[in-house]
Amino acid sequence: MKLFGYWRSSAAYRVRIALNLKKIDCELISIHLVKDGGQQHSQSYKELNPNELVPTLVDGEMSLNQSMAILDYLEQKYPDVALLPKGLEDNVKAKALAYDIACDIHPLNNLRVLSYLSNELNQEDAIKKQWYQHWVVVGFKALEASLARTKGLFCYGDEISWADICLIPQVYNAERFNVDMSQFPNIMEVTNRCRALPEFWAAAPEQQADAT
Amino acid sequence: MKLFGYWRSSAAYRVRIALNLKKIDCELISIHLVKDGGQQHSQSYKELNPNELVPTLVDGEMSLNQSMAILDYLEQKYPDVALLPKGLEDNVKAKALAYDIACDIHPLNNLRVLSYLSNELNQEDAIKKQWYQHWVVVGFKALEASLARTKGLFCYGDEISWADICLIPQVYNAERFNVDMSQFPNIMEVTNRCRALPEFWAAAPEQQADAT
Repeated sequence: MKLFGYWRSSAAYRVRIALNLKKIDCELISIHLVKDGGQQHSQSYKELNPNELVPTLVDGEMSLNQSMAILDYLEQKYPDVALLPKGLEDNVKAKALAYDIACDIHPLNNLRVLSYLSNELNQEDAIKKQWYQHWVVVGFKALEASLARTKGLFCYGDEISWADICLIPQVYNAERFNVDMSQFPNIMEVTNRCRALPEFWAAAPEQQADAT
Repeated sequence: MKLFGYWRSSAAYRVRIALNLKKIDCELISIHLVKDGGQQHSQSYKELNPNELVPTLVDGEMSLNQSMAILDYLEQKYPDVALLPKGLEDNVKAKALAYDIACDIHPLNNLRVLSYLSNELNQEDAIKKQWYQHWVVVGFKALEASLARTKGLFCYGDEISWADICLIPQVYNAERFNVDMSQFPNIMEVTNRCRALPEFWAAAPEQQADAT
């Protein structure tokens, strides 16, 4: 199994956490999103993933894009370490928290969007930072309220789920953009608990071979 | 079962299609995203969905947000009309196409983002349109290439899946913003096939009671 990713990609970071938690052996291959005008735009990578985004998982003959589809694949193929609750209501509610991040926060703040604000809309760095912080704070305020209802040791009850797997990379990103995280005590309680675990720690951007 | 939605919301539109295909009886309740400064921001709706977004599904005591989690709930609770392929690889690949839209296209172009461009970044309507078109065209170009590999009668093979359910609302939206869809023949072939089906037609924005 091979994961094409990038150290700072939140979406690749999610998959690295899941691989570690499920103890799946996987080769990590760096697609540098900045070098060479973005290696994700190369012809060979585009063949693998027409979206020209990371991550892409290759398992034998199959190549699969979209981090949430990859998490789903790993969940179905390697169910022993479950990363979703079993009961229907709990299952979909934990997923909803993950989508709160994957669909409503992250897509607005990834590298290509921030680049577009600079390069196409000629926005200054201060405006870019304001944009970033706006969408994270809007999203985290809602998530903070949701966690007050769902949180146990982790985002949804006492077991690690996709919600935590999506949350930790988003918090990493928010801190990079100097978002004041002290306004989100529920989020930070869960984050600190996850960060103390070796599976999360080893998946962190700074621990990756392509980190610069 | 009650679905809180809005006629023009792509995410609510997805759920309406799934409800129709699965023949599930569901009361549709309008949360007008523009009237009264946006009814999604009311205290009573915020209680139901802290994200202040539509849709929200209420089934008995349970309330669930995030359209992709709602599709999942319907899929697990009402499996008779399957909207995902059964085999693992096919299952996650169909989901990946749906996420191509739900995570990489739609979030950049929904109402709150376009409003932010106008109101906070003081961008003119022409720039807003350029923004909209840019992200749809980038996303649809990639999807067009993916469909060349996966398409049968529908986005993924010959059965309707989440990919079609996400695609039709996104095409509706793209046409509203005058995107030239003739550059995407695979997308339009599937779209026209879906639109001819009563379950898709009845879910369309113009058919909703709150359409104005």
